[in-house]
Amino acid sequence: MIKNRLLLDALNGDNVSRPPVWMMRQAGRYLPDFMKLKEKYDFFTRCKTPELAAKITLMPIEQIGTDAAILFSDILVVPQAMGVDVEMRKELGPFIPKPIREAKQIEKIVIPDVDDNLNYVFEAIRLSKQMIDNRVPLIGFAGSPWTVLCYMVQGQGSKNFDIAKSFCFSQPEAAHMLLEKITTTTIKYLKSKVKAGVNVIQLFDSWGGLLSEDDYQKFSWHYNQKIIDSLKSKTKIISFSKGCWFALPLMAKSGVDALGIDWTCSARNARYLTGGKVTLQGNLDPSRLMSTPKEIEKLTKKMIAEFGVQKYIVNLGHGILPNVPVDNAKAFVNTVKNYSV
Amino acid sequence: MIKNRLLLDALNGDNVSRPPVWMMRQAGRYLPDFMKLKEKYDFFTRCKTPELAAKITLMPIEQIGTDAAILFSDILVVPQAMGVDVEMRKELGPFIPKPIREAKQIEKIVIPDVDDNLNYVFEAIRLSKQMIDNRVPLIGFAGSPWTVLCYMVQGQGSKNFDIAKSFCFSQPEAAHMLLEKITTTTIKYLKSKVKAGVNVIQLFDSWGGLLSEDDYQKFSWHYNQKIIDSLKSKTKIISFSKGCWFALPLMAKSGVDALGIDWTCSARNARYLTGGKVTLQGNLDPSRLMSTPKEIEKLTKKMIAEFGVQKYIVNLGHGILPNVPVDNAKAFVNTVKNYSV
Repeated sequence: MIKNRLLLDALNGDNVSRPPVWMMRQAGRYLPDFMKLKEKYDFFTRCKTPELAAKITLMPIEQIGTDAAILFSDILVVPQAMGVDVEMRKELGPFIPKPIREAKQIEKIVIPDVDDNLNYVFEAIRLSKQMIDNRVPLIGFAGSPWTVLCYMVQGQGSKNFDIAKSFCFSQPEAAHMLLEKITTTTIKYLKSKVKAGVNVIQLFDSWGGLLSEDDYQKFSWHYNQKIIDSLKSKTKIISFSKGCWFALPLMAKSGVDALGIDWTCSARNARYLTGGKVTLQGNLDPSRLMSTPKEIEKLTKKMIAEFGVQKYIVNLGHGILPNVPVDNAKAFVNTVKNYSV
Repeated sequence: MIKNRLLLDALNGDNVSRPPVWMMRQAGRYLPDFMKLKEKYDFFTRCKTPELAAKITLMPIEQIGTDAAILFSDILVVPQAMGVDVEMRKELGPFIPKPIREAKQIEKIVIPDVDDNLNYVFEAIRLSKQMIDNRVPLIGFAGSPWTVLCYMVQGQGSKNFDIAKSFCFSQPEAAHMLLEKITTTTIKYLKSKVKAGVNVIQLFDSWGGLLSEDDYQKFSWHYNQKIIDSLKSKTKIISFSKGCWFALPLMAKSGVDALGIDWTCSARNARYLTGGKVTLQGNLDPSRLMSTPKEIEKLTKKMIAEFGVQKYIVNLGHGILPNVPVDNAKAFVNTVKNYSV
């Protein structure tokens, strides 16, 4: 039985004494201990060595005291399992040496045996669960098929993913074939993650906000909904689509347990657009953790007052920046833990 | 007297037979003739040589038949005039060798004599006006102080302008001092642009959408409003803040003649958020010009039907991509020109 049930209660819509708090992602990238491991082991070595991944996963709960752990991993292990090389380059970030640009490349992609190809993830989950020892829930995650396609086609990070979008708009049939294959793989992957022991799944759609409302529905949400439909009887699901305020009314009816909100959508707008019924998660601007601890406390209290204590998970509006001072991250988390109505 | 008054009529809120159409920015970057000039002259040579800037300014009206011309220039001529070096590097884009990171750098910045420092812009305007010979209106522009600060502090383009935002949130007084100086310079600059002959001014806030609603008000819109207040008796103003759907109700009360809308905000949402009274401009996803001409025609007609013919300026939701086929750009413009209610 998990002792700290705040996150699970908030996801169930049950009453809580204060909202749970955790910070996207990745686990601990701003912590000195993480940086030491980063100097010794490259990114995918850390992902693929269960002992290292588990060690990193536990850092934020042990050093900052968050109410949940999130597995240290990456959304791009999915295309790797599908046979597409993904490297992590210093300065540049993810890099795909042979990006997808033609239908015939997609035809060749086979749906992998995830239990074989991604076994290191499930090992990392089992080990993390042992080490967490029921103190807090463990969150697993996957990228949305749209976001994974963005990287597979663009070949690297981008301001506007112009190559990926041009591909989808000039070769829509090929794009949908790829999205189908990513979706099928992701569903299998997430089912195995749940079997291995994660308590909650978060779907990250980092680049959904690059699409219009119509195109988001076609190229992104359609596939997220398939994943949600396949997983919702098995686990709790949080869906976070950055920049997708326009789709919140649609997402609120999808069957997810919570919706992530970025900082450009105020609590008032988010509650209004979701009809006030769904648990919401977010949304402090990650750059705001560069303010003073006093200012962070003020902003965090204001945020809780605006979202409300119930049906709310305190978080950032996107991933924590690597250069955030540890004391500032603690100021954020401690403000929530000391919050009294 | 300008012959094609569609843009001016739409900005006045007067009835039109069809909406005007032009394409952000820059003038002609997708045209073969532009690419030839690009091979011969570097970016700032093209900006600073009135004959070249005027020649490029006229390309879209002569080769594509848009209902307005926009001056070929750059938002970063303003920091250059303020004494901050700005280079344009291949692949990377704008690059500031000595970015602003400390208050003492800002204290040293003096408000320039724009008529002296930016005379080449006003010459380019006078020459463009001669060459346009009253066929269509000429649009001049400036970056919003926030967007200009983003580049001055970050030192180059960025996905999230984390350094610029961290600077504002850790040194807010210094940030506001810089924003004041950019605002004062921009007001003088735009007044001189109007004197030189532009008929319309567009304010580009490309990075306002990186801020929360509260921070946008403080760090961006506050300064845009000062510019609008100083210019509105002198010229027509379009304000385009990319990603700032959340501020549309505020902007609609600002006294601008039109608001630019990006493609993540549907016509329905944009009309609702602005109260249905302000002229709107936008909002086809620039990547959608990579679809077939037939699909572009369909999407453009749908967009006009949704925004409505009156109080509407057809445009993209951001700048045209340089690799758009000319026939696709023509399909977009011609669909509007052939539109009948």
